[in-house]
Amino acid sequence: MCDKHSNNPGDASMRKFIQQTALAGAGLIMANPLSLFAGENAANGAFVGNIKSRGYAAKDASGILSLWEFERRPVGDNDILIEIKFASICHSDIHQLKGDWGKQQYPQVPGHEIAGIVAAVGRNVTKFKIGDRAGIGCMVSSCMKCESCKHGEEQNCENNATVYTYGNPESGSPTGITQGGYANNIVVNEHFAIRIPENISLEEAAPLMCAGVTTYSPLMRANFNRGDKVGIAGIGGLGHMAVKLAVSKGADVYAFTTSPDKVNDIKGFGAKEVIVVDDIAKLKPYRHKLDYMVSTIPAQYDIESYATVVKRGGFYTQLGMPVGQQLSLNVFAFARTGVNYNNSLIGGIPETQEVVNYCADKKIAPKIEVIKASQINDSWAKVANKQARYRYVIDTATI
Amino acid sequence: MCDKHSNNPGDASMRKFIQQTALAGAGLIMANPLSLFAGENAANGAFVGNIKSRGYAAKDASGILSLWEFERRPVGDNDILIEIKFASICHSDIHQLKGDWGKQQYPQVPGHEIAGIVAAVGRNVTKFKIGDRAGIGCMVSSCMKCESCKHGEEQNCENNATVYTYGNPESGSPTGITQGGYANNIVVNEHFAIRIPENISLEEAAPLMCAGVTTYSPLMRANFNRGDKVGIAGIGGLGHMAVKLAVSKGADVYAFTTSPDKVNDIKGFGAKEVIVVDDIAKLKPYRHKLDYMVSTIPAQYDIESYATVVKRGGFYTQLGMPVGQQLSLNVFAFARTGVNYNNSLIGGIPETQEVVNYCADKKIAPKIEVIKASQINDSWAKVANKQARYRYVIDTATI
Ligand SMILES: [Zn+2]
Ligand SMILES: [Zn+2]
Ligand SMILES: [Zn+2]
Ligand SMILES: [Zn+2]
Repeated sequence: MCDKHSNNPGDASMRKFIQQTALAGAGLIMANPLSLFAGENAANGAFVGNIKSRGYAAKDASGILSLWEFERRPVGDNDILIEIKFASICHSDIHQLKGDWGKQQYPQVPGHEIAGIVAAVGRNVTKFKIGDRAGIGCMVSSCMKCESCKHGEEQNCENNATVYTYGNPESGSPTGITQGGYANNIVVNEHFAIRIPENISLEEAAPLMCAGVTTYSPLMRANFNRGDKVGIAGIGGLGHMAVKLAVSKGADVYAFTTSPDKVNDIKGFGAKEVIVVDDIAKLKPYRHKLDYMVSTIPAQYDIESYATVVKRGGFYTQLGMPVGQQLSLNVFAFARTGVNYNNSLIGGIPETQEVVNYCADKKIAPKIEVIKASQINDSWAKVANKQARYRYVIDTATI
Repeated sequence: MCDKHSNNPGDASMRKFIQQTALAGAGLIMANPLSLFAGENAANGAFVGNIKSRGYAAKDASGILSLWEFERRPVGDNDILIEIKFASICHSDIHQLKGDWGKQQYPQVPGHEIAGIVAAVGRNVTKFKIGDRAGIGCMVSSCMKCESCKHGEEQNCENNATVYTYGNPESGSPTGITQGGYANNIVVNEHFAIRIPENISLEEAAPLMCAGVTTYSPLMRANFNRGDKVGIAGIGGLGHMAVKLAVSKGADVYAFTTSPDKVNDIKGFGAKEVIVVDDIAKLKPYRHKLDYMVSTIPAQYDIESYATVVKRGGFYTQLGMPVGQQLSLNVFAFARTGVNYNNSLIGGIPETQEVVNYCADKKIAPKIEVIKASQINDSWAKVANKQARYRYVIDTATI
């Protein structure tokens, strides 16, 4: 099982890996095995037991997070264990944990923008070795057999077998559901882990796992040309990445925000124009002017007016997810826009790897603020109040 | 003003026209002028008075129609007066008159699928002469100056000046609003009247004015190829025309209905397959199989499941207008379809003329049942209960 890694024996993590090979007999290689195991399995050295984890969990629909000690499933043959270093706060975390998208099981640890270091690898793992930098986004499993899964669109699994990173039923999990990244570690099938190149920091890589790929995916599909006019509505965690990514692809970016104090930042991200939509009439001068538009607005809003800024026959992609996941369109008004509406849901694993590599290569990083675990609840309130600038990243060493 | 018509003096209506030219001095040519005018103007022969009209109107939001005598505006220089022969029943009539799409002014005469004979023409009219066959659809006015209006998309008037055929405020109208086609006559700017060729009956032409163009317009925009798989959901007045039109353009049509007793009819319209969706699971075998889909379902429904029958990246056009005009999409589920959604609103005047000519040439006619005015209320109930097969056409001589 070590042959696959022997082509770069010189790097530091490889040396660490070799030091651990004495443990390989059980089919699992671990960095610091003894401290992690729960219960008897830890004592008898079989390395097949549950993994002890410390996280910040909501205990009920109040959505107030607090420290929670729990267990994760054992590291299987195709799994890796990641020692999480950073996990960033996505608006989705708040919506889901407060039950806005449906009833939840508690306690539940949110977090699907995860970056860390591989601490153990299962017998069949080939993509990672101990010490590698790795990330996890919104998914941790899917059927892997259907056409969507085989084509790297695990989020669209035709068998509805996509398992999201937190709050999804998972038979192998000691808590019955997946538990996310506001924690000190996580176990995941290697397929669903993303390699993080050396030329981007872990704290800047974390937000790419959701905000990055969620905006990158539709922007790439839109396939616009240099100089095309691309609108981005809602300039928060997702929106500011959308601005940076669209600018990097040569678009003239028109950013629509309701926060006047974001204007300078957004110009700094490269937007050509920033429109402060304190009144819906501010959209009028842009009527049918843009080639494409992405909205990250995570609420019911006047989508018919926003869509009118796109050329007839153009496309409008809604990324933000309102309360109840339902967005209501006025059929009559929307017809008059002549615009094609679609939704986009994150992106597949290969596309997530692509955006991470792209951002590392092009030096495109989210604008982040690193926080301690004790600041999580305050930061959630700020995200909900549009005060984040633009992504809070939890230093999980403080959990 | 007669020169424009002198190139075909042999036809019957032209002869009638010439007989009327003695009345031309006032700038208005009428077939049977004296019986039409209301009040003093009729008596003094100035031909500038309001037009007397008999129609079936709803008097309140109960939506029960009864005979109503009212007046229409005078025939202006650019107007024609149409003696209505047939007006068909569109589901929209019911929705609007019952207030499903907003509060209404009553009495209100519905009807926007109108066919008749020109009975008078204003001074500047060039498109029609007395005795011509003419129709009116959903619109009777717009700004005529904006880009949309200039390009024959009067329904998308950029100045929001589109005036619909009934229930829209209109300063020139004696009742303050436009009054529709369940009546014995109507006055309209000639631009908004459609020429009806001789090779289609008036009763079959009437439904083309709304159901015809509303389905024709998106089907033409979809620009599918021969043998492409086109889905039509909801096989009523609009849907059955959509099936016939798509078949005529060479599509393999998949028709989705909830009425098992429509299956034979729909196969007769040329559909390749008819799927009775008595359970939403009936859609599963068609997952991502179709190239394009049109839905005429005029209610909130499980659009995410219906959209899944379209190929990823394909288009789904919603034509049916639910109560409140609002259609709610589950953003998450819709994202997973990968489908582009749009609405389409009727079609412009040139496109309405196009569908009428197309259907006349290709012998494509709606399946109709001619009714008497006394059957209107019953017929409305049947339309609402999906019992229409497939368009009720009112013989306005019975009003
Ligand atoms: Zn997210
Ligand atoms: Zn799958
Ligand atoms: Zn209609
Ligand atoms: Zn206009």
